Amino acid sequence: MNRLFMLVVLVSAALPAVADEGMWMPEQIPALADRLRGLGFTGDVQAFADLTGFPMGAIVSLGGCSASFVSPEGLIVTNHHCVQGALQYNSTPSRNLMRDGFLARTKDEELWNGPGSRVYVTVSVRDVTDEIMGGIAPETSDRERYDVIDRRVKARTAAGETSGLRCTVASFFEGLKWFEIGQLEIQDVRLVYAPAAGIGNFGGETDNWQWPRHTGDFSFYRAYVAPDGKPVPYAKNNVPYRPKHFLKVSPQGAAPEELVLVAGYPGRTARLSPYAEVKETVEWGLPRSIKRAGELIAILESLGRDDPETALRVAQSIRGLHNGLTKNRGVLRGLVQGGLLAKKESQEQDFVAWIDADPARQAKYGNVLPAFRQLLAERSLTRERDALLSDFSGSGSSAFGCAQTLYRLSIERPKPDTDRDAAYQERNWSRLKEGLERAQRTLSAKADRAVMKYALAEIARLPAGQRIEVLDTQVGLTPGMPEADAARACDAWLDQLFAGTKIYDQDFRLSLFDKSTAEIVATGDTLLSLAAALYPLQEANRDQAKERAGANYRLGPRYAEALLAHSGGLVSPDANSTLRITYGTVQGVQPRDGLFYLPQTTLKGILEKATGSGEFNAPQAELEAIREVLGGKPTPYLDPQLKDVPVDFLSNVDTTGGNSGSATLNSRGELVGLLFDGTFDTVASDYLFDTEKTRSIHVDSRNLLWVLTEVDKAANLLAELGVPGP
Amino acid sequence: MNRLFMLVVLVSAALPAVADEGMWMPEQIPALADRLRGLGFTGDVQAFADLTGFPMGAIVSLGGCSASFVSPEGLIVTNHHCVQGALQYNSTPSRNLMRDGFLARTKDEELWNGPGSRVYVTVSVRDVTDEIMGGIAPETSDRERYDVIDRRVKARTAAGETSGLRCTVASFFEGLKWFEIGQLEIQDVRLVYAPAAGIGNFGGETDNWQWPRHTGDFSFYRAYVAPDGKPVPYAKNNVPYRPKHFLKVSPQGAAPEELVLVAGYPGRTARLSPYAEVKETVEWGLPRSIKRAGELIAILESLGRDDPETALRVAQSIRGLHNGLTKNRGVLRGLVQGGLLAKKESQEQDFVAWIDADPARQAKYGNVLPAFRQLLAERSLTRERDALLSDFSGSGSSAFGCAQTLYRLSIERPKPDTDRDAAYQERNWSRLKEGLERAQRTLSAKADRAVMKYALAEIARLPAGQRIEVLDTQVGLTPGMPEADAARACDAWLDQLFAGTKIYDQDFRLSLFDKSTAEIVATGDTLLSLAAALYPLQEANRDQAKERAGANYRLGPRYAEALLAHSGGLVSPDANSTLRITYGTVQGVQPRDGLFYLPQTTLKGILEKATGSGEFNAPQAELEAIREVLGGKPTPYLDPQLKDVPVDFLSNVDTTGGNSGSATLNSRGELVGLLFDGTFDTVASDYLFDTEKTRSIHVDSRNLLWVLTEVDKAANLLAELGVPGP
Repeated sequence: MNRLFMLVVLVSAALPAVADEGMWMPEQIPALADRLRGLGFTGDVQAFADLTGFPMGAIVSLGGCSASFVSPEGLIVTNHHCVQGALQYNSTPSRNLMRDGFLARTKDEELWNGPGSRVYVTVSVRDVTDEIMGGIAPETSDRERYDVIDRRVKARTAAGETSGLRCTVASFFEGLKWFEIGQLEIQDVRLVYAPAAGIGNFGGETDNWQWPRHTGDFSFYRAYVAPDGKPVPYAKNNVPYRPKHFLKVSPQGAAPEELVLVAGYPGRTARLSPYAEVKETVEWGLPRSIKRAGELIAILESLGRDDPETALRVAQSIRGLHNGLTKNRGVLRGLVQGGLLAKKESQEQDFVAWIDADPARQAKYGNVLPAFRQLLAERSLTRERDALLSDFSGSGSSAFGCAQTLYRLSIERPKPDTDRDAAYQERNWSRLKEGLERAQRTLSAKADRAVMKYALAEIARLPAGQRIEVLDTQVGLTPGMPEADAARACDAWLDQLFAGTKIYDQDFRLSLFDKSTAEIVATGDTLLSLAAALYPLQEANRDQAKERAGANYRLGPRYAEALLAHSGGLVSPDANSTLRITYGTVQGVQPRDGLFYLPQTTLKGILEKATGSGEFNAPQAELEAIREVLGGKPTPYLDPQLKDVPVDFLSNVDTTGGNSGSATLNSRGELVGLLFDGTFDTVASDYLFDTEKTRSIHVDSRNLLWVLTEVDKAANLLAELGVPGP
Repeated sequence: MNRLFMLVVLVSAALPAVADEGMWMPEQIPALADRLRGLGFTGDVQAFADLTGFPMGAIVSLGGCSASFVSPEGLIVTNHHCVQGALQYNSTPSRNLMRDGFLARTKDEELWNGPGSRVYVTVSVRDVTDEIMGGIAPETSDRERYDVIDRRVKARTAAGETSGLRCTVASFFEGLKWFEIGQLEIQDVRLVYAPAAGIGNFGGETDNWQWPRHTGDFSFYRAYVAPDGKPVPYAKNNVPYRPKHFLKVSPQGAAPEELVLVAGYPGRTARLSPYAEVKETVEWGLPRSIKRAGELIAILESLGRDDPETALRVAQSIRGLHNGLTKNRGVLRGLVQGGLLAKKESQEQDFVAWIDADPARQAKYGNVLPAFRQLLAERSLTRERDALLSDFSGSGSSAFGCAQTLYRLSIERPKPDTDRDAAYQERNWSRLKEGLERAQRTLSAKADRAVMKYALAEIARLPAGQRIEVLDTQVGLTPGMPEADAARACDAWLDQLFAGTKIYDQDFRLSLFDKSTAEIVATGDTLLSLAAALYPLQEANRDQAKERAGANYRLGPRYAEALLAHSGGLVSPDANSTLRITYGTVQGVQPRDGLFYLPQTTLKGILEKATGSGEFNAPQAELEAIREVLGGKPTPYLDPQLKDVPVDFLSNVDTTGGNSGSATLNSRGELVGLLFDGTFDTVASDYLFDTEKTRSIHVDSRNLLWVLTEVDKAANLLAELGVPGP
């Protein structure tokens, strides 16, 4: 490398570094104007508070991932890892899009993502705190408090949706504030482009959460609506959605020290959680998740060995487990070895001392933290049993998950809509149905049985007093039973269970969607019968959870009020999957003693890592194109200082899961990159933000444009993005 | 950390970086005066050529590791990983020195290292090329050429030892040059100090070959001689050896950019090897070693689980296998992905073109490389069989290794001394005997059987035509036999083999040392019988190897002559376990795209890594002492810029295995550190030196002094080193 340049990079990387914590609500941004201008922002800060203007009008959610419009014809850019469902839905053993990628050369070639894929465009945010929380008498019981708030939320939601928008009423600052969010819900989403896994997932699990990183984690969707512009389900002659605003993909990318803003939908943080909650997470939750993920990965991987069909079906589950496993290890490491748990404890001690220092504060807030601890202690009594029941019950991507959805829907349907559990309200029926349909691509009896068996083995070991009696009776388990006997009983019972179900049959499954509880029971299907048998216990658990939620509604707002008063100044709420903006600069970091992460990686690093197989299997076409660049072939995406095309970069913006695919904007509102990860060293920032070391990882827009140009020769996309083609 | 300082470090780290290749013979150093002065050397370069002066008189070999005298009373400093044998010899299940470390507070408490431990002080080096290579007629056959040279080497060695020194006649530059090296051989070596494994091996296999590193890889021995000053075997009333020169351990350590010189005994490099040899290493040798090491580690680890006695016996083998495994992976990576093999190929193409460009050169050197390739091709025909036979035969630390030594000694002993194989000449008998004695601490029938079984399974799979007939007959193996049948046959045979031997009994083993072949055969011991049965095949292989060695003596000098003429300028010979000096500066490095290794680590990093168990189990006393330093407790070893005590540092000196424990000197000849490792990214430098990226890893003398002072309170040692105690 050019030594003179290295000097420049390292010097600049070493200068300012303290990051600003904050996943800000758009309405909070104007108050940050001074700070933004100090970092080089020259535009109009008010623009960020206008959700329907530029650039916010271009920012969308995919439900779990973030994305943005990048053309007037509804072209959407997001992460490669956010389009795995669409790639899996459209893959077959003979046409492996997950591995080989996909490019539609015309709109006709674009592939429907399958049922359930959505694009949400946030168009309004309104403070409804008084409507949700106002006028509830202090003496109201916890359960009643929950029910009142639940009914008000549903009523607000229903009222908000009369306009045709999707409406969400969300709690901020532990229930201190509530906002009603209106979103356009686009239901026909199609796959336009994904690079090969050797680009989009280059580095695989080995590099996940790591730096240096060389992943080309980008892909394109397109949003479709009815010819009249209304969001409707997939139909062949739907037409591309025309957003009012879209982002320009910058051919200049981002440079070290440059201000960047990230707009997206961060999922969940717990920075305001009381110390006791975080401590329990460290002592019980994280170790349990880490152990379980590691063991399930081994189980699912062994199922896929020598069985490509199963391997394809479990691929996404494994990727998700790996992702969580690595992240949780990083969180645990940061909280324990990184000292964040100790810091959290001392912060809470300061907070308590501040409360205690004033009799009025003491009277108002003094009992809140003890009450939280009491709630936690009660919940902990059955935490192991409850977690195992949840593990055993699985998710909607398992057949038993589908069976439980069908059974519960049959119980909820006869109720008035406002009495239904939110997930089973009529507004969600089409999504529920799509989920049952979409599951077909991932359902695997082999995997379902193995995961259930894994949970059952643990359930068999539960101590007397924490048993799941229904399963004890059904399976024939007793406390203290020898492991070998329990394993035999489980196997025999699982054999029967999986022999007696037709839930794997899509037609059968969907035919039950409108059926009554009696009709469902009458099928005699073993998985449906099991769903019915477990329902009372699950319902009792849900009732308990509602009571606890009521207690949290009682305590949380007072707790948050005290916290905000104690901290003073502007504070951003914990992430809750709503639209947020964070800002920072492109920065390297010293993550650990003796090591420095440079702020950018380049194509050369792909050559260094490429092994020709497995996780580092960069496509031959890319390797050749890289050699051409390094050999001097001109490209507009060459960085003159790096003398190479930038691949990924680091910044000190404040993000978390859900931010994946978020537009990374420069101060002119151009898309200079896509956020796709955070560094392992700092994932514990979900619990306490580390202003010195936290780094997010972005793919540089020049990498995206270079791959489209030189590797995948996507002239049509380049033209649509308004950049010169190959 | 102090940001302003970080700026300084990073800038300085980025400035000069191209390293000088060369493990120089001391006599070559004066010719490098200009280069050394350019890097800041102000002393007398001639001093390095004087082996009996300062500082070279203080540099010693331990046979496999390097070390140096650091007190007038024969105190020797080396790496912690170089004293494992002594720790193991003195450990018992109830007194685990390998884990807990050791400190002799008086000389009386010092522990004898056990038989076989040596300190070699090089006192003379003399060019004997003409005496070894002169006057051999060109038409001499390869085998005869080998025998002539072998006899001459033995005669020279015997003549050189009349002075009472240990003499070695060694080949340099592929046999183009020969030197006779005289060494004082100190035979009574005792353990003085080793830190706990949580310091000396902090980071374990995870950190081995890695940066950032936080290992306190230092320990102390003392050399003892007879009261009259003569080197004699261990005796209670031997007295400390008084070296003419010793090094001062610097309380200042080394700073970034500072010139450092490393004096030690690098083991083996193959930079002058023809391309075809390196290619075979890449395609066959390294993958084979990597696979074997990984599998043997798993086998030996499983034996030690739940069996602490066996675990202790196999610990050093496992550590050696891990070390080789990681290094070989790094070498393979550097040669293949790092592009060094391709560079070697193109260098050889240039070399061939240079030979071909001149008819005289063509006539003289043109046939050398083709002849080498022919030799390699012949050797390759039976390489798998030969390697397996060698694996099966094991080493002197296995019972079968001992049996073979005894059997072969009985055959060699009746011969005139000059006709004996060099390892079995009378001068080596005491070492052979010590080896048989020393083996007692590591012998494990469980491990021996498992390693043999592993090799046998591969032997059973050899194709017809490459079979080891003796084993086929003994074990009952046939080519193409089903694996399960072969496994059963091997198990049955091994049961008999291990039931019928008394080699594990030390008295029995040593009682055979003087026995004749007939007496050894008459014992009927199964391992001795097996040694006898395999002897003819091994002898035939040795004969073939001698013929090949003769061919190398014929071709090598011409090849090296051409290489040296082609390269011009001063070239250092490949490492061959003789005394060398290398120089460079303390430097960070960009090992890979996006990453920068800072040149120093500090105590803070130990806190970051410490987990309280396993490989990162820093002692509590150290962790507390670190917290005190970070809390402001004064220590003379604090680096004012780092505001912490430095632990390890990187430099661009040129080193390899065998250099472990080497004194790292500043330009005043003070010991500022100990070399102990190289970075994973650059271990392929054994085959081709990478002037930009190669880095060696040293422990800083301040870390050593700080641990002695604050953790192990070794006042006696500090006083002996002439530094203020705690």
